[in-house]
Amino acid sequence: MDNYLSMQPRPEENTSAVEGPVLIIGAGLLGASVGLALRAQGVPVYLSDVSPTVEAVAQDIGAGLSLRALAAAAGSSTVDAAALLPAEPQLVVAAPPPDVTAEVVIDQLRAWPTATVIDIASVKAPILSQVLASGADASRYVGTHPMAGREKSGPVAASGELFTSRPFVICEHELARKDSVKLAQTLGVELGSTITYLTVEEHDRTVALISHVPQVMSSLLASRLQETPLYALGLAGQGLRDTVRIAGSDPSLWVQILAANAQPVVQTLYGVREDLERLIATLEDPTAAGARLDIAQLMSEGNAGVARIPGKHGGAPAAFAHMTVLVDDTPGQIARLLTEIGELGVNLEDLRMEHSPGQPVGMVEIAVNPNEHDKLKADLTSAGWKVVR
Amino acid sequence: MDNYLSMQPRPEENTSAVEGPVLIIGAGLLGASVGLALRAQGVPVYLSDVSPTVEAVAQDIGAGLSLRALAAAAGSSTVDAAALLPAEPQLVVAAPPPDVTAEVVIDQLRAWPTATVIDIASVKAPILSQVLASGADASRYVGTHPMAGREKSGPVAASGELFTSRPFVICEHELARKDSVKLAQTLGVELGSTITYLTVEEHDRTVALISHVPQVMSSLLASRLQETPLYALGLAGQGLRDTVRIAGSDPSLWVQILAANAQPVVQTLYGVREDLERLIATLEDPTAAGARLDIAQLMSEGNAGVARIPGKHGGAPAAFAHMTVLVDDTPGQIARLLTEIGELGVNLEDLRMEHSPGQPVGMVEIAVNPNEHDKLKADLTSAGWKVVR
Repeated sequence: MDNYLSMQPRPEENTSAVEGPVLIIGAGLLGASVGLALRAQGVPVYLSDVSPTVEAVAQDIGAGLSLRALAAAAGSSTVDAAALLPAEPQLVVAAPPPDVTAEVVIDQLRAWPTATVIDIASVKAPILSQVLASGADASRYVGTHPMAGREKSGPVAASGELFTSRPFVICEHELARKDSVKLAQTLGVELGSTITYLTVEEHDRTVALISHVPQVMSSLLASRLQETPLYALGLAGQGLRDTVRIAGSDPSLWVQILAANAQPVVQTLYGVREDLERLIATLEDPTAAGARLDIAQLMSEGNAGVARIPGKHGGAPAAFAHMTVLVDDTPGQIARLLTEIGELGVNLEDLRMEHSPGQPVGMVEIAVNPNEHDKLKADLTSAGWKVVR
Repeated sequence: MDNYLSMQPRPEENTSAVEGPVLIIGAGLLGASVGLALRAQGVPVYLSDVSPTVEAVAQDIGAGLSLRALAAAAGSSTVDAAALLPAEPQLVVAAPPPDVTAEVVIDQLRAWPTATVIDIASVKAPILSQVLASGADASRYVGTHPMAGREKSGPVAASGELFTSRPFVICEHELARKDSVKLAQTLGVELGSTITYLTVEEHDRTVALISHVPQVMSSLLASRLQETPLYALGLAGQGLRDTVRIAGSDPSLWVQILAANAQPVVQTLYGVREDLERLIATLEDPTAAGARLDIAQLMSEGNAGVARIPGKHGGAPAAFAHMTVLVDDTPGQIARLLTEIGELGVNLEDLRMEHSPGQPVGMVEIAVNPNEHDKLKADLTSAGWKVVR
């Protein structure tokens, strides 16, 4: 413990534009990852979590100093952040479960007279409303959403690079102080993220469309598989696997997210319901006049929607040319393939493995620029690879 | 032309268990791919397509001999398959668009007194009904479904390896002759596929669940993106991309498939609608008693469904451990990473690239056996890779 404390950097070792101290409330996956990223740059970070275990694990992985541990080292039976921190925090990061985020933000605004308080919850409007209604000093509050996550949770899964190259949305509001907004931006930059400014309403409608409704659709579909005979699932291809992948997400977290963003989600689901009703009516009598046109229209609208998503280099996904290569299902085969592609000077736009039920052979689907496709296919084939489609 | 004809193998050069001749009606992606696979083994293959261009292209890529070209070479103004083939076909493969498949099967059963006629359409019950109702010799008909496809269509996209390691479903029926069923099985084996026997009803319910309803859900979701501002789509992550990927499929083909399999699809969509209605009602009043339990139940049912899909080596996807590694977005980087993983003796269970909006850095998500995860992560990190999550 003493050793660990003595490892805390002296202030001059802080290489970050965030001065600190930073107090993180909630030391799960996201909170601990923020702590790790800041500690790596020497920012003094303090951790608090309702769970003593989570708080202790977060300290053990190096995400900051546990307030409970500091209190115990000082022989104190209570944990008083104001007494334990060397100074008032420059920044408080509220990272508890979504359904208590507003409460934590309000408490922290009241606890400190000058600290900027941000939260990192994935739904923003309800938190801002509660903060504004509370009478606490909302000028020091800024909502943010670092758009990163993973299947796992808890500090053990944390990483200082979790937010690298991911969007970091900042939701200003009319009362927000400029220096608080600026500090939120500095944090996003230090996390290696790409900063985007949205209003809370824009943000919540956006995540409803690009995250919450996709989650609902994936879960609705996956739910149907409960009744499916296993022989049928054995025939499943990559299309089904991709479509239901996110249905494996944590229900307890999603209950909080969907409940918090209910209005924007339900508005989009009304549109889904309307299209679904029309499709069901059409499929109940597929020989009726206009039925096929109805189906074609739904499919074409799907084409139009998916074509609007930017690709890795900003192009639409349809702009890439695909090929599939057979590889033995042994270590190193895919590496050998990609080494040869790299030696040919071709940059992969996308790459995915396809699963083959029942056979010890893998397939790697590669997306490249269309003008590189034919030559690459010929080169790989003459190098002995089986390019199958 | 003469050169090409002289390249036709002599009978003793046929290394396949399919003797032939094989007549393929419909020389698009699937028909031409069957032709290529059989030609590669020396089976005599003849091609017919309503489109002269498609038929000519299929011959040019080596999928078989065009009946039109043979007729022209013989100075005939009409195309009479019986006169052009050296003998009655052992096997006729009906591979036209889905909505004319039954018609082609019936015509071919009537055209030849002993040939086995199979079709490869992706919906099976309506075709069998029409064949049985036609009065044609249904004992020589066997429905099959080689479960392969790709985004592209037409013979240019064909490959003799299209069906390798993919399921090949054979739908026997009560009247089917044993030798015809056996021939369908031989074809599936020669295509390199994994054979599965289902009734037409089992097959159609299966594809409704694992292919047609996923397609509908993906299209319904992607359709909502039409209204999404572009800044919102710029924030989209891998979850959205995976969920809407198949929404890019060809509407004209899917109109035929959904119309043909309307009943099994609509039965499953009733279940989706019921869950969607319940979720909408819940989200309209997320503070009502039991609302959160309702949402949790939907999400948990999704968990349960997705967990039933077998993984690459037969395990459920949840059984794998994931990690994400940062790579420079330059040729050869991913290869270098996978080379090192291969040298460590670790077999990849899955691999996907993640797209990072706006930054020249790629992320590769790797799935491995859980007992290999921690060592691999440590080894890669000490080799200088950034393992970010």
